[in-house]
Amino acid sequence: MPQNKQIQLDNRPQAEATVSNFKLVTADTPALQDGQVLVRHHFLSLDPYMRGRMNDSKSYAVPQPLGQVMQGGTVGEVVESKNAKYAVGDKVVGFGGWQQYSVVNGDQVGALRKVDTTHVPLSHYLGAVGMPGVTAWYGLVKIIEPKAGQTMVVSAATGAVGSAFGALSKARGCRVVGVAGGPDKCKYAVEELGFDACIDYRLHKDAASLSKALKEHCPDGIDGYFENVGGIVLDAVLSRMNAFGRIALCGMIAGYDGQPLPLAYPQLILTNRLKIEGFIVSEHMEVWPEALKELGTLVGTGKLRPRETVAEGIEAAPEAFLGLLKGKNFGKQLVKVI
Amino acid sequence: MPQNKQIQLDNRPQAEATVSNFKLVTADTPALQDGQVLVRHHFLSLDPYMRGRMNDSKSYAVPQPLGQVMQGGTVGEVVESKNAKYAVGDKVVGFGGWQQYSVVNGDQVGALRKVDTTHVPLSHYLGAVGMPGVTAWYGLVKIIEPKAGQTMVVSAATGAVGSAFGALSKARGCRVVGVAGGPDKCKYAVEELGFDACIDYRLHKDAASLSKALKEHCPDGIDGYFENVGGIVLDAVLSRMNAFGRIALCGMIAGYDGQPLPLAYPQLILTNRLKIEGFIVSEHMEVWPEALKELGTLVGTGKLRPRETVAEGIEAAPEAFLGLLKGKNFGKQLVKVI
Repeated sequence: MPQNKQIQLDNRPQAEATVSNFKLVTADTPALQDGQVLVRHHFLSLDPYMRGRMNDSKSYAVPQPLGQVMQGGTVGEVVESKNAKYAVGDKVVGFGGWQQYSVVNGDQVGALRKVDTTHVPLSHYLGAVGMPGVTAWYGLVKIIEPKAGQTMVVSAATGAVGSAFGALSKARGCRVVGVAGGPDKCKYAVEELGFDACIDYRLHKDAASLSKALKEHCPDGIDGYFENVGGIVLDAVLSRMNAFGRIALCGMIAGYDGQPLPLAYPQLILTNRLKIEGFIVSEHMEVWPEALKELGTLVGTGKLRPRETVAEGIEAAPEAFLGLLKGKNFGKQLVKVI
Repeated sequence: MPQNKQIQLDNRPQAEATVSNFKLVTADTPALQDGQVLVRHHFLSLDPYMRGRMNDSKSYAVPQPLGQVMQGGTVGEVVESKNAKYAVGDKVVGFGGWQQYSVVNGDQVGALRKVDTTHVPLSHYLGAVGMPGVTAWYGLVKIIEPKAGQTMVVSAATGAVGSAFGALSKARGCRVVGVAGGPDKCKYAVEELGFDACIDYRLHKDAASLSKALKEHCPDGIDGYFENVGGIVLDAVLSRMNAFGRIALCGMIAGYDGQPLPLAYPQLILTNRLKIEGFIVSEHMEVWPEALKELGTLVGTGKLRPRETVAEGIEAAPEAFLGLLKGKNFGKQLVKVI
């Protein structure tokens, strides 16, 4: 059996997460039992939600257990199979974690999904045509329910979720404005992702300043907002929401280290009759087929051209993950482990 | 024509509203034109939303104009009619404002509604079987969508909205817990209104203390919350909401004087996948017939026994209104003007 390097959670962050929270372990992969397959991972997915799971507090997900492999999405290839549904060479998406190989029960519903790499590169099944893409789809289609001509805004606009949100909004005839960190990301959002405008939040020291920029780029106000960040971005957007606006609350990365993140004027929810809804996409598996079909088509036809930042080798995962939390990545953050 | 005393808004509050913001004016009532009716008011309704309209800021309603009669709901009797639809003696609900008489175009849709006082006292059409009752109904039925066995919480529990919310929740098989100010109100909520428990917020100096009390009285967590108040009550309730809980945001009376009212942990909306929705009942006229029918039955059968605080005479309206904003009323605050 091949040797399997893996990254485990060794201890929980006190405030900011650091590389010392993780440890690298090498083990043999166990012999397969009937029904199991051995998957060799090509890419690991790094996602902001993982930071929340590193804490031991009440969250929407069970905390990541200590001393076990970090959980997360993976794409790879079946290299050994004792399950008639999977053949060696099949390309599969799964939830194999931060390691080189995983042993999966092929009969468990949802554990593995075979994918076609003719028109969509394998790695995109962890991004635009995977969980982040479906996340954008659910927030836009099921919570925001956009109408053509309305104005949509998304924070972390060039990330895996934000870039899918932009393409999905444009496909529905909306104006879409991004919020991102730095001139390169903003340029990319407009020139490559098709955003109508993108605001560099680093140029704004407070919510009032950001609110002015939003007014400039959203002259008809904001009808839908997809929130990945929280903090002053949310305060600023709230001040520009139109009556009956909808906010899909997907992430509040600004508060992942435990700092308070108060919402300054909740009265605006009332005066503008807004709807705010938090969600986690894995609780809505019923929409995945429809969402993945649209996202696959957008990528296959070049209407969504997601960018990726790829770290090399399993050992690079912790550092790459911490960079993601600081916005150092550009587009979907992956780790290539083959 | 009869003399008509009225209360006008003379100037806008700087922070807290005071009696000096109002002035009493006496005028003749004009001669009726074809299609008009003259209504003699029996009761004026005083409601928290009026405070928001006294400000000149962006709100869900057009600001109350200066130098004009304070707007508001009224019940009364037709005393003169040049409209075939209305006869002298008809009891009517309208929006006649803080005055003794109003001249109404009887053909304008929604301007007047004839009511039956056989089983429901006229004044209740301003409370439980009127706008406040429908407000409770809309928040509960359309936003919270309760299921039997779930736990509902409402702030300002003994007010016109809160007491209707309690009866409507019980009718749906829910546990319902109120939050109110002072032991008398809490006793009334449990003994007369049928709440399962009522928490006196005055005994709690901060959200953490109130959260403990909520835990005690909501052992299975909170599934639905109807918000009239804002501030630490909202913070405390958020900390006890179950996954997929719903919050109907109807009022934030704690912030009506312009003080900041930040929400401490908006992250909870995400981690518990909550839905928060602001609304104003006058934008949902389509539900009024269904809601009024249920509310009328609850009152007619004694299942909802709303209490009223009645100020005597039009001159008493400003003082009574300021008392309402401080929670000095007990149940629906009315002014008797006949």
